[in-house]
Amino acid sequence: MRNTWEFFSSENIVFGNGAIQKLDKVLSRFGAKNVLLVTDQGIKSAGILEKVTDELEKYGYHYLVYDKAVPEPPIKSAMECLAYAQSEMQTDVIIGLGGGSSIDLAKVVGLLLEYGGEPRDYFGGENLVPGPVKPMIAIPTTAGTGSEVTSVTVLTDTENQMKVGISDNFLRPSVALLDPELTVGLPPYVTACSGIDALSHAIEAYTAKDYKYIEAEGNLLFQGSNPISDVYALKAIQLIADNLIVAVHQGSNVEARENMLLASLFAGMAFSNAGTAAAHALAYPIGGVTKSPHGEVTGLLLPYVMKHNATVAPEKMAEIAKAFHYDLSGLNNHEAAELGYEAVLNLLGQINLPQTLSEIGVQEEQIPEIASKALQIDRLIRNNPRVPSQNSFEALLETAFA
Amino acid sequence: MRNTWEFFSSENIVFGNGAIQKLDKVLSRFGAKNVLLVTDQGIKSAGILEKVTDELEKYGYHYLVYDKAVPEPPIKSAMECLAYAQSEMQTDVIIGLGGGSSIDLAKVVGLLLEYGGEPRDYFGGENLVPGPVKPMIAIPTTAGTGSEVTSVTVLTDTENQMKVGISDNFLRPSVALLDPELTVGLPPYVTACSGIDALSHAIEAYTAKDYKYIEAEGNLLFQGSNPISDVYALKAIQLIADNLIVAVHQGSNVEARENMLLASLFAGMAFSNAGTAAAHALAYPIGGVTKSPHGEVTGLLLPYVMKHNATVAPEKMAEIAKAFHYDLSGLNNHEAAELGYEAVLNLLGQINLPQTLSEIGVQEEQIPEIASKALQIDRLIRNNPRVPSQNSFEALLETAFA
Repeated sequence: MRNTWEFFSSENIVFGNGAIQKLDKVLSRFGAKNVLLVTDQGIKSAGILEKVTDELEKYGYHYLVYDKAVPEPPIKSAMECLAYAQSEMQTDVIIGLGGGSSIDLAKVVGLLLEYGGEPRDYFGGENLVPGPVKPMIAIPTTAGTGSEVTSVTVLTDTENQMKVGISDNFLRPSVALLDPELTVGLPPYVTACSGIDALSHAIEAYTAKDYKYIEAEGNLLFQGSNPISDVYALKAIQLIADNLIVAVHQGSNVEARENMLLASLFAGMAFSNAGTAAAHALAYPIGGVTKSPHGEVTGLLLPYVMKHNATVAPEKMAEIAKAFHYDLSGLNNHEAAELGYEAVLNLLGQINLPQTLSEIGVQEEQIPEIASKALQIDRLIRNNPRVPSQNSFEALLETAFA
Repeated sequence: MRNTWEFFSSENIVFGNGAIQKLDKVLSRFGAKNVLLVTDQGIKSAGILEKVTDELEKYGYHYLVYDKAVPEPPIKSAMECLAYAQSEMQTDVIIGLGGGSSIDLAKVVGLLLEYGGEPRDYFGGENLVPGPVKPMIAIPTTAGTGSEVTSVTVLTDTENQMKVGISDNFLRPSVALLDPELTVGLPPYVTACSGIDALSHAIEAYTAKDYKYIEAEGNLLFQGSNPISDVYALKAIQLIADNLIVAVHQGSNVEARENMLLASLFAGMAFSNAGTAAAHALAYPIGGVTKSPHGEVTGLLLPYVMKHNATVAPEKMAEIAKAFHYDLSGLNNHEAAELGYEAVLNLLGQINLPQTLSEIGVQEEQIPEIASKALQIDRLIRNNPRVPSQNSFEALLETAFA
């Protein structure tokens, strides 16, 4: 049994409509003069980049913009951005502006600026990041990944055709600056995929095995659920239950946008300490056989995973049903737990996301291999409240199939 | 109306029985070799200091112990500790071990080690702390002040006979290391005073005016309640409602101790961002006319302040009543809000703390002056949900008198 848990977080959260006007204040805390801004073409063409550079200009910062971030950025993007920054200035602070990809890219570049080398030097092993990286301010433009407060960055090793991650608590951005107005223009499908991604983080963190019972030695980045992650995760679930449908169908509803951005922040704080579990493990091999975005895949799997886990985490599943305003009176915990599954499955329908694996192009004969590959991802599987087996995963996937 | 809020927190929380065994891991994150340990005689004679120095010796750290912290440390303690540290080594990390006083002293010394000068240079004004101070690990031995995660330090200026504070987000300890086993030996009265102190932090932060409506310009350390402080504050209230009585009457109940230490941590995170309000404002002038400890005074005032504020914050007061397991069915919000007052007043009785001002030596004729002095403490008064007046405070104090 493990006796202690840890919680890591970004030092400073700045939140609210117009929060980007606080950028100067935030930068001046670091005594920053030279700022590297990492973003992507979508952010530029949506006019969001300009809002940020306007602030930098108003206060006389020297800044460079690298605007070529792409989803799951290839290693060569990181090296290109690094070379560009190094050739032009001494970077004091990095800003990652965008969805998960820009923020992830900024994290790697912050690491390389401080300690040199290239991304491959930091893959895989533990404690490969020697210490604090370049101070970073993350400004998310979607309400989903939570990357603004997480310790993980995902890149693509194109030579070896692999998604690779660097995970270290030193990679967590120092400041998360969240301005809901930046998310108002997101189309319904992106809102739905991002929002369900946040829900997957929150539910998997909340129902993750208690930290006491995680079977692993040493310092774990994903430690299982603990009293702080529980508080954030449950609040995230409540906010998503009350706001995601509105945010998808009434994109300009600023209150719903605000609450969704808060929810994805809270979910990020929760899962980056507690970890995620079976839905994320299964999403990896499925990601290899479908073009659907990550959020859509984990979101689709989520209710089936909840059903799979319900008997082992009935109280938390019942709390989830309660967050979705189900009346649990007269039900025992197991009956209540089943309603958690129902709530999330209904939600998928309401926000027009697929509810079955066949809809996203998975073939029934791929199920055994998906199950066996997922079972190998130990850091996620050991977090799942119910110990899964080849059989239990295959049954889960069969139910999710049609 | 203010549009944005900020939340600052310690980067790393380490929590659990035996957590001090993680000290080496925590220190090595900072690459530390030379450690200054600030504590007091009580901690030394209780054998707690030795537990910590044993860890430092086991892993070969070079360390200095300053064990002369006293409550509300005088400026000369800070200068003495500073001179001692500077004469012996280059300090890499400071550990504050003890109740609020040792941790507060460590904060000031960390500031002076980094930027020189003396404490008076940093009193009063805003932004006088130029940047990050020496990295600090706070190890609390009581469950009350929350100082392990707050940005405030209180000293005594003995020359001018004044309590003076330095408040800056750079003073927040980098790491809070909380080991409930260290609190098991606390006597009932200290447990009660500390626990009610934490409850005052939590309730005043939770019911503080919403950040949107705080009438002040610029960057505020105490910003009013916001979505993160609310989450922590309510959870702290729930934990205290369920555990303080047990911790007072069954000191060796480790589960109750664990939950109280968690509650004081959560309360510290909440109030160091949201701020406190009328109970703390009134406690300052009362502190001048009684020898009772701070926790006892604010705790005594708390229910009467809740009654004073109930009509303006009925929903939150009702949530507090719910946290104390009152059945609110059939009641309107105002009736429910009154129960919050009742719950806290009952709690005082159950943990053998005074419930009236006369019991702690306040004279009835002192009431008008107490009210008028409290009204002058703007940073707390503006946080109070109901705008208090000389009349409303005098009526409150009359009710609290007998």
